[in-house]
Amino acid sequence: MTTSRAHPSTGTCPPPLLSRARELTEPVLRTLIDGLPGRLRRVAGYHMGWWDTEGRPAGHSGKCLRPALVLACAQASSDLDAAAAPPVLAAAAAVELVHDYSLLHDDVLDGDRTRRHRPTAWSVFGINQAILTGDTLMALAMQQVAIGKAALVLSRAVQELCEGQSADLAFETRDDVTVAECLAMAEQKTGALTGAACELGALTAGADETVAAAYGRFGRDFGMTMQLTDDLLGIWGDPSVTGKPAGADLISRKKTLPVMAALESGTPVAERLAGIYHDARELDADGLAQVKRLIEAAGGRDWVRAEIARRTRAALAALAEVGPTAAGSADLLLLIDMAGNRDH
Amino acid sequence: MTTSRAHPSTGTCPPPLLSRARELTEPVLRTLIDGLPGRLRRVAGYHMGWWDTEGRPAGHSGKCLRPALVLACAQASSDLDAAAAPPVLAAAAAVELVHDYSLLHDDVLDGDRTRRHRPTAWSVFGINQAILTGDTLMALAMQQVAIGKAALVLSRAVQELCEGQSADLAFETRDDVTVAECLAMAEQKTGALTGAACELGALTAGADETVAAAYGRFGRDFGMTMQLTDDLLGIWGDPSVTGKPAGADLISRKKTLPVMAALESGTPVAERLAGIYHDARELDADGLAQVKRLIEAAGGRDWVRAEIARRTRAALAALAEVGPTAAGSADLLLLIDMAGNRDH
Repeated sequence: MTTSRAHPSTGTCPPPLLSRARELTEPVLRTLIDGLPGRLRRVAGYHMGWWDTEGRPAGHSGKCLRPALVLACAQASSDLDAAAAPPVLAAAAAVELVHDYSLLHDDVLDGDRTRRHRPTAWSVFGINQAILTGDTLMALAMQQVAIGKAALVLSRAVQELCEGQSADLAFETRDDVTVAECLAMAEQKTGALTGAACELGALTAGADETVAAAYGRFGRDFGMTMQLTDDLLGIWGDPSVTGKPAGADLISRKKTLPVMAALESGTPVAERLAGIYHDARELDADGLAQVKRLIEAAGGRDWVRAEIARRTRAALAALAEVGPTAAGSADLLLLIDMAGNRDH
Repeated sequence: MTTSRAHPSTGTCPPPLLSRARELTEPVLRTLIDGLPGRLRRVAGYHMGWWDTEGRPAGHSGKCLRPALVLACAQASSDLDAAAAPPVLAAAAAVELVHDYSLLHDDVLDGDRTRRHRPTAWSVFGINQAILTGDTLMALAMQQVAIGKAALVLSRAVQELCEGQSADLAFETRDDVTVAECLAMAEQKTGALTGAACELGALTAGADETVAAAYGRFGRDFGMTMQLTDDLLGIWGDPSVTGKPAGADLISRKKTLPVMAALESGTPVAERLAGIYHDARELDADGLAQVKRLIEAAGGRDWVRAEIARRTRAALAALAEVGPTAAGSADLLLLIDMAGNRDH
């Protein structure tokens, strides 16, 4: 074999094979990453070398060596025009995404501060952002090669989990979070996986996709009743039964749904509550009792109870659509009753 | 709906539905987690609540609520005996694994120190172990629902990446690491994904699984020639060409393959090298030059070159088995030439 001295692995002078792989794969990658919300998109694009820390275009890029391997093997093993075959391009993108996921996490694990001549993502955006963005790229990768519907359902749920966690982190530093945003975030963090659980149960038992999707909707609403009940117990639960310290969510000023609904109620009580909730001082027992009264007076507790009832009805409606077997139906009713009616 | 007051979500008194889900799912989960290597197994089992920090049996367990949803929906949507259907049980395990992956990562992201009444995994085993174990559980989850061969190939590669990274972390604190262990680790960290890239290229282009597997073997050996060459360049590369600081791997006492091969050579030179390499003092320019000479004199450089040649031959043999097309073959030869013969 002859020795190539054309410096084939630099970004500035790649051999045609690598630049071709990049030309084919990068549009797929860009579409996927452009579809991510806010911070995840920004961190991923920075890591890929497309953007600088502010999101402005930057000229760095990975070598696309692994996509080049995918394309070359596709070409070698068939007479197919690999460049034009969507499953091949999807696999090329998937492999690059897994590579980037592992780089994002490895740099955290190894404490490395430089990658591709630039500061690593964690050293610019923090460890949390790098972990989450890595998780997201891995979920995107799995979706590209998920031929079975089940794999697609699960990898999408993982992506939603990551997006929800990313939103949750972002909310911590924002004062203008709305109830609608909190509900959406809870649906991503909790509803996505309970929804996937139900959809997968139906799919793997042989249900067709429309029926499975209805079970998925049941599962999402199920997850929401569970989460909303957790939020209520976090405030009004009996610590000796829940096993959690009294008022911990309130003391740490967590933006749970009863609080958010109360703050958004537009009542004079909401203003008093906001004054206390945005004050960083530690809450003593009296302060805690007062906050609980204000949330209740502003309608936060009733709002959440109504939302639990609404979600329970929606879950049952989804179930009614598909006419479950008697035994399965009994189990699901028991579960949703458990999720919304419990003291711990 | 009636309100259940049977405290259904406690570990001590679960309703039959949840205990049945746990009975069915836990054996699957235990088999999967028992198959993980060393530290990953330990951290996963601790997180699941099966073992204490020393790996002794402990009586805690998750609620298995999500597996219960999978089983109930399977039963509701079919006349199948869900409990006896392997795809349903695999889906139940997958959903629980994704849940546990997200808990492991979320506890890191949120800095939470308590989970299920016990210290969180990261607070016992460190952040790195918690991230890696989470990644591993996610890869295991994907394998459970991977119906298409492509999804299976990619999720297995992700698992190998995690196992390699876990081994790498463990090696940092060990003085008795062997060359064979380092080679195996490099194959997991680098060969697994280049192997998956090649196997996926062939699979997505329509090759049958035996042919695709041969491409996979090509890709593994390809990755090894790339990694071994990186190791050589890390020591003898010209910093002005590689873009990496001179001798960085040696200064940080990295256990790269040229060093390990030299240390294991059994030569008197190896003993002198070991004396310097196990000494924590910073290497100056003279010390660096001496270490490089010792590695070379003990045969470390030649050993790696021979290994590169051996891996290149193995890669070409795998390719010869399957008779690639002319165009694809030319690309692959160019890539493997590039991987093993380059100065940066």
